[in-house]
Amino acid sequence: MEFVLTHTDSGSNARRGYFVTDHGRVDTPVFMPVGTRGAVKTLRSTDLYQIDPKIIIGNTYHLYLRPGNETLREMGGLHKFMGWDRPILTDSGGFQVFSLKDLRKISEEGVQFKSHIDGSAHLFTPENVIETERIIGSDIAMVLDECPPALSDKSHHREAMERSMRWAKRGAEHHAHTPFPYGHRQFLFGIAQGGTHKDLRQESVERLQEIGFDGYAIGGLAVGEATSEMYETTEHTATLLPKDRPRYLMGVGTPEDLLECVARGVDMFDCVMPTRNARNGTIFTSVGKVNIRNAKHRNDDSPLDPDCNCEACTKHSRGYIRHLFNVDEITGLTLTTIHNIHFYLRLMEGARQAIEEGMYAGWMAERLERLRN
Amino acid sequence: MEFVLTHTDSGSNARRGYFVTDHGRVDTPVFMPVGTRGAVKTLRSTDLYQIDPKIIIGNTYHLYLRPGNETLREMGGLHKFMGWDRPILTDSGGFQVFSLKDLRKISEEGVQFKSHIDGSAHLFTPENVIETERIIGSDIAMVLDECPPALSDKSHHREAMERSMRWAKRGAEHHAHTPFPYGHRQFLFGIAQGGTHKDLRQESVERLQEIGFDGYAIGGLAVGEATSEMYETTEHTATLLPKDRPRYLMGVGTPEDLLECVARGVDMFDCVMPTRNARNGTIFTSVGKVNIRNAKHRNDDSPLDPDCNCEACTKHSRGYIRHLFNVDEITGLTLTTIHNIHFYLRLMEGARQAIEEGMYAGWMAERLERLRN
Repeated sequence: MEFVLTHTDSGSNARRGYFVTDHGRVDTPVFMPVGTRGAVKTLRSTDLYQIDPKIIIGNTYHLYLRPGNETLREMGGLHKFMGWDRPILTDSGGFQVFSLKDLRKISEEGVQFKSHIDGSAHLFTPENVIETERIIGSDIAMVLDECPPALSDKSHHREAMERSMRWAKRGAEHHAHTPFPYGHRQFLFGIAQGGTHKDLRQESVERLQEIGFDGYAIGGLAVGEATSEMYETTEHTATLLPKDRPRYLMGVGTPEDLLECVARGVDMFDCVMPTRNARNGTIFTSVGKVNIRNAKHRNDDSPLDPDCNCEACTKHSRGYIRHLFNVDEITGLTLTTIHNIHFYLRLMEGARQAIEEGMYAGWMAERLERLRN
Repeated sequence: MEFVLTHTDSGSNARRGYFVTDHGRVDTPVFMPVGTRGAVKTLRSTDLYQIDPKIIIGNTYHLYLRPGNETLREMGGLHKFMGWDRPILTDSGGFQVFSLKDLRKISEEGVQFKSHIDGSAHLFTPENVIETERIIGSDIAMVLDECPPALSDKSHHREAMERSMRWAKRGAEHHAHTPFPYGHRQFLFGIAQGGTHKDLRQESVERLQEIGFDGYAIGGLAVGEATSEMYETTEHTATLLPKDRPRYLMGVGTPEDLLECVARGVDMFDCVMPTRNARNGTIFTSVGKVNIRNAKHRNDDSPLDPDCNCEACTKHSRGYIRHLFNVDEITGLTLTTIHNIHFYLRLMEGARQAIEEGMYAGWMAERLERLRN
């Protein structure tokens, strides 16, 4: 995969670049909205084009269960199925399966689990996950990894990391030999594990590089460890990763987290936070979070965020959106989702510009101060 | 209110015309999508502009309870509040209050009821309903009426009709003397009652005409009586109404009902059917209804309706929309809502064209045959 670094910040590890897929170019640092089951929740593909993310992510676990591989194949892959012709990255579903706790059983072959929908038994292996991602037809596939809870002891983290590296190798080999049914290319990313243990992270990065991937993810963070540990591990791991490949910090995070981790050398992010919070009525603004359900917004004819030019902010007031939440109108969820994704995308746009101008650290400090207002 | 009849059909009582409000012209026969609480369910105002109804309706009962008159006044009325600058008609809320059954008590003064939300006590009078509609700022307000159940005996229907006529007079007088806080005009419609009793309907129409309204509604139908009785009462009442005023059949109905009642001289319709059915997965198509939840649509890459050019039909397949319903993605509800409203609007567009061409009866017969496929 072509990845070009165009700027590196002088006062931080922040990087500005782009990678190219057959569905288009993606400028980094980038935030990828989450479309777990073939839709970014509450939005249509026409909404997505309007909000204008350059890449979104889907989830192999959820798509494998519903609509299932047969339908995805019959319908010509996820791009065609959901009406989205820009890049898609698919998470392998490892995180979801390992979140099932009582419903899964791990072995060297893979991970057995029971569907959260109907209890039916399934096995994910490094190979069959790749096959599902091939059928989904994402532009970037992730290998299957084992995601231990943050509070696991070090031996568990070592065991999970080592297994994840063996699985990464099997996944990469299988990916190289599995036919791809569509006309575009699919790239493959490896995922570093090791919890907050620097030696484990270092070993994980080395083993991934021996295999060789189009990009490298930092997995297993933002799962319960302290934020300072997450930042430290991110910085440590990012520094070890090859400069000429994109770095993807999985499942992170708040607007503050994104800014802090861009400064530590991360290029790609995904998180359910903007979309999930939107549906709870929590709005991200340039001066911090707002709970739109609060009665104080009742007669407020100002926009969610005066610095925003999204549809929700240019067409509607806090008072109207508060009313929609108050009477449980779905329209409210859609408007806050549009705003929050727009906010995240704009935040990354600002970061990219600040890096281009070589002023990232100062820009970030100013943004963080306002966000923490 | 200016109302111009441009065509009358030769083979039926169908009429083609338009009325003019300060928020725009409305061609009739027209279907008005229902936006009960300041939003057509699942849709944003940008979606509405795209689907392109020329008028929508709101509900005084629901808007009075939430967001309430104070907020509606503070926020500059419903048009501004919801971001919609085309005509709005407001139902008086009589139907909703009378549907509360155990929660309301009727007197000559008005109707006492308890809120379905918090049980708080309220009184609707012909006068204060007008005041609320003034604050809402609709282009067309409806008077408060008493809506008895269809199966009430005739004396109950007589009593309700007579009270509704006294209330209509009080409402009209109050409307004439209540200041209107906005820069546009608000017109007032009366509502004929009388169940399926022709003599009561005749008396009701006569008494409404004595008062004089900008338009006349046929209320109290589609509440449990046989469809044939509904059609017969509609035809009877429509024939009695003045030719030079628009006729609005409230709360009706299926696509077949709309076609049949256009043939009987109705100009305006509203119904929750397209929007409510959409959220249940029931799709209206040119060849009848489709339940999109059905597993047979799983791998179907054809559109909901091949004859439709709405966003759902031009951008997405039955298989995708079925999947969205199957996994409870809100996006599915929005897409089917867009389609069903579009279908209703297009149906009325076809009716208007057929009347212009003086071929309504034949066109209707052909459409009904396909609908009943």
